[in-house]
Amino acid sequence: MRGLWLENRKLTYREDLPMPEPPEGEALIRVRLAGICATDLEMVRGYYPFTGVLGHEFVGEVVRAPSAPEWEGKRVVGEINVTCGHCAQCLAGRPTHCENRTVLGILGRNGVFAEYTTLPVANLLPVPDNVPDEKAVFTEPLAAAMEIQEQVHVHPTDKVLVVGAGRLGQLIAWSLTLTGAEVYAVVRRERQRALLEPYGVTCLTSEEVPHWAMDVVVEATGTPGGLALAKEAVHPRGTIVLKSTYAGEAKVRLSPWVVDEVHVVGSRCGPFAPALRHMEAGRLDPRTLIDAEYPLEEGLAAFEHAAQRGVFKVLLRP
Amino acid sequence: MRGLWLENRKLTYREDLPMPEPPEGEALIRVRLAGICATDLEMVRGYYPFTGVLGHEFVGEVVRAPSAPEWEGKRVVGEINVTCGHCAQCLAGRPTHCENRTVLGILGRNGVFAEYTTLPVANLLPVPDNVPDEKAVFTEPLAAAMEIQEQVHVHPTDKVLVVGAGRLGQLIAWSLTLTGAEVYAVVRRERQRALLEPYGVTCLTSEEVPHWAMDVVVEATGTPGGLALAKEAVHPRGTIVLKSTYAGEAKVRLSPWVVDEVHVVGSRCGPFAPALRHMEAGRLDPRTLIDAEYPLEEGLAAFEHAAQRGVFKVLLRP
Repeated sequence: MRGLWLENRKLTYREDLPMPEPPEGEALIRVRLAGICATDLEMVRGYYPFTGVLGHEFVGEVVRAPSAPEWEGKRVVGEINVTCGHCAQCLAGRPTHCENRTVLGILGRNGVFAEYTTLPVANLLPVPDNVPDEKAVFTEPLAAAMEIQEQVHVHPTDKVLVVGAGRLGQLIAWSLTLTGAEVYAVVRRERQRALLEPYGVTCLTSEEVPHWAMDVVVEATGTPGGLALAKEAVHPRGTIVLKSTYAGEAKVRLSPWVVDEVHVVGSRCGPFAPALRHMEAGRLDPRTLIDAEYPLEEGLAAFEHAAQRGVFKVLLRP
Repeated sequence: MRGLWLENRKLTYREDLPMPEPPEGEALIRVRLAGICATDLEMVRGYYPFTGVLGHEFVGEVVRAPSAPEWEGKRVVGEINVTCGHCAQCLAGRPTHCENRTVLGILGRNGVFAEYTTLPVANLLPVPDNVPDEKAVFTEPLAAAMEIQEQVHVHPTDKVLVVGAGRLGQLIAWSLTLTGAEVYAVVRRERQRALLEPYGVTCLTSEEVPHWAMDVVVEATGTPGGLALAKEAVHPRGTIVLKSTYAGEAKVRLSPWVVDEVHVVGSRCGPFAPALRHMEAGRLDPRTLIDAEYPLEEGLAAFEHAAQRGVFKVLLRP
């Protein structure tokens, strides 16, 4: 099988990967289209040790599902956390924090930058017919954006700021406008602004960010500077959502967090079904984020492209 | 007037301070007893620039209140934030975050380590007869402890850990037991343990703190090590309350906050009335925390005493 293999921080294109065999309860899935995200780029830089097929954003087609043959032939997306169902976190209703979890292309489980992958049938969701592959491949990052609304009650009368208007920041800002809130985003490039404006997001430069004006600020840059800007913008007792991959240690002045009694919430994977509903209803169209599509054979070039500044989404077609 | 004056990080005992004159709406208060807290010690170390009479924990007696003579002669405690009532924060129901606030002995307003002080009548609360001065002087720090329950819903079935069992940590742990929750505290000294046990708090050494076991962790040490221990103890999606004075910058690994989706809440001043109700009902008796009482003239010695490791509360009697 062809695929992109990560080992010792080195990503290689290989044609000798074994064809995966679905374990009990899992489905064999042919990957139709996959997306490269910031976590993939960080993993190649060594953010997290992982050996295997990289990649977790995908849309595919079920080839074989011995335990649930009704899924065969269906076009699907899949929740990336594979959980045990019996640990303390699973039993407490926090399955994405399962103590024994594997995570597609991230932790203990081969991912989707390959011709085929496997996932439990329980993780799969059918893709509505009117959602083409080029939209469906954004289900995972859009679900991650929706996690913010699972965690924080965003009121229709709130002022919300998104710091960072890249790949994920765009999906976050767009989805937040659906709450009815006033949504602002910090932009650095004209294209970021152009992508945000159809959704009614007000674009600001970092110098224009008002002091203590926001009820909720989403930090999507993964940088100490972004976090400082978020703290500047949020009002006392407001909420900062950390929605990014933070490498290493950050220097943080905690005293203003205490004095101004801010809430800081870490935010990771989110619910797939609401993301699919938004795309099925046409409330969001992530295809405007696509910069390029590469065949799997040119995966290393695709990674180089995705790592360039100002690039949004690069797709891989196996 | 006699008092302790802070200027350029230097604390001096002075006998030449002018007698304060209460402005419109304020009362002149004779200080009966005052307490030294960690913030006072940090301010002498330069945590925050302030020139004036230091001190904000007190119980006193109203000498003169031209706008509300019914208060004269009453024994009182007082909310330390003096607010404008018309800024965005006041109008949003966050008066302790008033943009134009002065804070007793901390910001733009002389404090209570003196014979007399002034506060708006609106800030005063009468002290119940059965609460002696030696208890009432703890109203402000106990109110700060109660702020945690204003901000976080602590369930009766929760497991709660307090990291740091000093002055404030004790009041926090004691007050949290009144929720019915299982309360744990990290202790370093035998006396910390002895003070906690009557309240049914389970004492742990830092090595005994369990991984991912707590619903809520209160960080009351103000150190990066305490924060790391709090992160270790809280379960995914649990809450860490920052309840301390953090000087300078801390190095924090933010990535585990994101991956485990923890909530972090800064917590400062709290409500006085519930603190007084707890003491009036005898649910808490902070007098066990008193290590020493000094006359105002020996205030500098009192500060030296309060700064020693393992010392709880040092009081000043003007």
